[in-house]
Amino acid sequence: MTDTLRLGIAGLGTVGVGVVKIIQRQADLLTARTGKRIEISAVSARSRDKDRGVNTAKYGWEDDPVALAVRDDIDMFVELMGGSDGPAKAATEAAIAAGKDVVTANKALLALHGQELAVAAEARNVTLRYEAAVAGGIPVIKALTEGLAGNEITRVAGVMNGTCNYILTQMEATGQGYNALFEECGRLGYLEADPNLDVGGIDAGHKLALLAAIAFGTRVDFDAVALQGIQSITLQDIRRAGDMGYKIKLLGVAQMTGRGLEQRMTPCLVPASSPLGQLEGGTNMVVLEGDSVGQIVLRGAGAGEGPTASAVLSDICDIARGIRLPTFGQPAAHLKAAPPASAASPAPYYLRLTLKDKPGALAKVATVLGDNGISIDRMRQYDHPDQDVPVLIVTHVTARPSLDAALAALPATGVVEGEPVALRIEDV
Amino acid sequence: MTDTLRLGIAGLGTVGVGVVKIIQRQADLLTARTGKRIEISAVSARSRDKDRGVNTAKYGWEDDPVALAVRDDIDMFVELMGGSDGPAKAATEAAIAAGKDVVTANKALLALHGQELAVAAEARNVTLRYEAAVAGGIPVIKALTEGLAGNEITRVAGVMNGTCNYILTQMEATGQGYNALFEECGRLGYLEADPNLDVGGIDAGHKLALLAAIAFGTRVDFDAVALQGIQSITLQDIRRAGDMGYKIKLLGVAQMTGRGLEQRMTPCLVPASSPLGQLEGGTNMVVLEGDSVGQIVLRGAGAGEGPTASAVLSDICDIARGIRLPTFGQPAAHLKAAPPASAASPAPYYLRLTLKDKPGALAKVATVLGDNGISIDRMRQYDHPDQDVPVLIVTHVTARPSLDAALAALPATGVVEGEPVALRIEDV
Ligand SMILES: NC(=O)c1ccc[n+]([C@@H]2O[C@H](COP(=O)([O-])OP(=O)(O)OC[C@H]3O[C@@H](n4cnc5c(N)ncnc54)[C@H](OP(=O)(O)O)[C@@H]3O)[C@@H](O)[C@H]2O)c1
Ligand SMILES: NC(=O)c1ccc[n+]([C@@H]2O[C@H](COP(=O)([O-])OP(=O)(O)OC[C@H]3O[C@@H](n4cnc5c(N)ncnc54)[C@H](OP(=O)(O)O)[C@@H]3O)[C@@H](O)[C@H]2O)c1
Repeated sequence: MTDTLRLGIAGLGTVGVGVVKIIQRQADLLTARTGKRIEISAVSARSRDKDRGVNTAKYGWEDDPVALAVRDDIDMFVELMGGSDGPAKAATEAAIAAGKDVVTANKALLALHGQELAVAAEARNVTLRYEAAVAGGIPVIKALTEGLAGNEITRVAGVMNGTCNYILTQMEATGQGYNALFEECGRLGYLEADPNLDVGGIDAGHKLALLAAIAFGTRVDFDAVALQGIQSITLQDIRRAGDMGYKIKLLGVAQMTGRGLEQRMTPCLVPASSPLGQLEGGTNMVVLEGDSVGQIVLRGAGAGEGPTASAVLSDICDIARGIRLPTFGQPAAHLKAAPPASAASPAPYYLRLTLKDKPGALAKVATVLGDNGISIDRMRQYDHPDQDVPVLIVTHVTARPSLDAALAALPATGVVEGEPVALRIEDV
Repeated sequence: MTDTLRLGIAGLGTVGVGVVKIIQRQADLLTARTGKRIEISAVSARSRDKDRGVNTAKYGWEDDPVALAVRDDIDMFVELMGGSDGPAKAATEAAIAAGKDVVTANKALLALHGQELAVAAEARNVTLRYEAAVAGGIPVIKALTEGLAGNEITRVAGVMNGTCNYILTQMEATGQGYNALFEECGRLGYLEADPNLDVGGIDAGHKLALLAAIAFGTRVDFDAVALQGIQSITLQDIRRAGDMGYKIKLLGVAQMTGRGLEQRMTPCLVPASSPLGQLEGGTNMVVLEGDSVGQIVLRGAGAGEGPTASAVLSDICDIARGIRLPTFGQPAAHLKAAPPASAASPAPYYLRLTLKDKPGALAKVATVLGDNGISIDRMRQYDHPDQDVPVLIVTHVTARPSLDAALAALPATGVVEGEPVALRIEDV
């Protein structure tokens, strides 16, 4: 006789429907691999009547996901509603308190409340997993937590928001500006209800904070992620970066430094020929670096019904197989808060500024940079007679505080029009 | 009080020394992650006195790895000697019989005897793992077995022998021929004692057979892998493939077809712009395709002390954490032998032949191809007046039996000099 693992699934949107489809279509395969029959006891969503393209009539129904989470006939609660608070959090807490394992795809929930949820789960001796929350179908939580368990992790980096990468690579491919592509993404359904979660880097920042907690054995600390969105990137930036052999990516980097834990999710220039530089469209890529393994690169679909559901099933199968790990790889009660790095590690920077057409304008800018200890690698002034002049500067390796001081001092020169753009050049 | 996991390590070469170093250097990290102290009780190698750059004086010593495998003071036997038979097999069998878990990096052992060893391990209720045996530091066994457990796997492909990829990419980069680079690899220590394991594709074929068994839930069947080495690839092939937008790779592909399980490890042309096409030097890349996840690409060091030891530690940590899976993801006793595909699936092919400088030679070749139902996409005849003439042909999609029939019929034309080279063009 085969044991049964009984699920309660809250949320029947893109991901939830994907999970139901796999469980229905691959029932025998899942049993062969896990030794258990994986069955859905009951589901919950907002609207009971919506046609979702899957038959859920044989499952129990709860209007309230909290009621679903504590049902006697479920062993595991699968949270696929989304949102860092509200019903997702309440139902997850209720499931843990009722002694149910929890699988979720919810990066916002984990990035903001992961520590307390993990402590609660471990105290109650249940498992809380979230492979789908980071980089969709790529099994990156597993690779980092288990596959590289023998390594001291030195750096984690990646492109983890497909929408931003789609916008940036389409700007280059089509010559359209940011706004046109932002609107296209809205029409295509590529944007979250609050688009700032995507283009502001928040969603990708949540993912980075989760990877950093696992990598460095520290408490997840989303507030310490330095965030910068892609809204200020122009087609000109992309073209000029290209001329110099770079691509612009919304790049997450987490590394432990002598000054504390550095976490950033910001637009960066990366070498056009690197794996990250070659990443097109909505695909995600995560780079994991360890003291023994060197560099591992993982690439795949970061979102969408099938890939995300695949990751949810990975967690479900793990638990069915008896694979039970603490949420962040180490017991949550032992995790310490990492001191956030006071500033990003030094790097070369790409600067774009617009100079008023005044004599000596460039010299004034160069002086401000020099006064702040910033040395210039390359500079290019575009020739627009009788107009404001765009100037591009690539610096040598620069400490971020020096750069900030220079940027703060520029307005007083009276020759700079508008806000300068400063993008880090990352060697990854 | 922390539990202890006590290891016996047989083999203190490249990989064994790497494992000892990690266990010594990262003892606290390993304990934080696994909840266990990981200790080495005893070791074995051929020569006791060799200076190995690590201090093993405090560990017990056995001349005989079989004696090590059954010692009372070890919980796990770590086999890092190599060889498909002899002491590696004897010691692994002895360890299983004695109720010890086994971790190995030995692809030859697993590819040839994996089924019987897995059955023995599962009957004895011990765990036998081998993450390091495939693609070095890349956690690909884990990604496939666990990370993609919710997927019906549709195809597995990859470049899994770093030495071959080094030779092929160095031929292109330096303009040296195969023989010069083969010798260089010998000097650099990149070749196995029997170099045919590398350049003949056997080593990579072992790895492919292991991945295929997990992917398709079938018994590992190395004998069914169609093998072709890289020895016949010339600089000219590489250059001409490049002209057409391709790179030549020793590529493994496994897929389940209507005609049975197809497993091949052969030199193929892949698009130069694809992730596989861009792979340089000794790096490995594995492509996993599933019905839900789409395509996942994993890239990293396929060999070397640190990366390989990292993979061994992944298995050790898994077992320390209580992660116990059957060797091939499903109970070995349930695995069925897959019928091997009678022929590779149809594909376009690249053909290189040398024509005698005779009138009508090319027409005769074209006739043979046409008679066998092979249609020509592109053809190029290089101009060497009064000499034998190299001709390159790219076919449209062709059934392998048709190609084989045409190749068999060519000698009778009397216009072909030497052995034609036929390379598959793979769309991956
Ligand atoms: N979509 C992706 O590609 C992707 C990728 C990675 C991670 N994720 C994460 O996966 C989660 C789900 O995303 P999604 O794209 O599937 O979202 P979605 O399509 O918007 O679906 C959300 C589902 O939750 C249900 N729901 C919302 N509030 C509820 C409540 N109070 N009670 C009961 N059900 C409620 C909705 O019900 P109705 O259908 O009745 O409105 C809907 O079925 C999120 O955490 C997201 O961040 C998504
Ligand atoms: N090297 C890599 O990058 C790599 C990558 C992936 C997988 N692997 C696999 O890992 C395994 C080990 O490879 P390696 O490169 O570390 O090999 P290696 O450097 O040749 O080391 C082999 C070790 O085994 C010992 N040994 C051989 N026969 C023995 C016997 N009868 N009794 C006791 N000890 C014996 C040798 O002892 P002495 O030192 O005293 O001669 C040596 O320490 C192989 O299965 C290989 O395929 C290697």
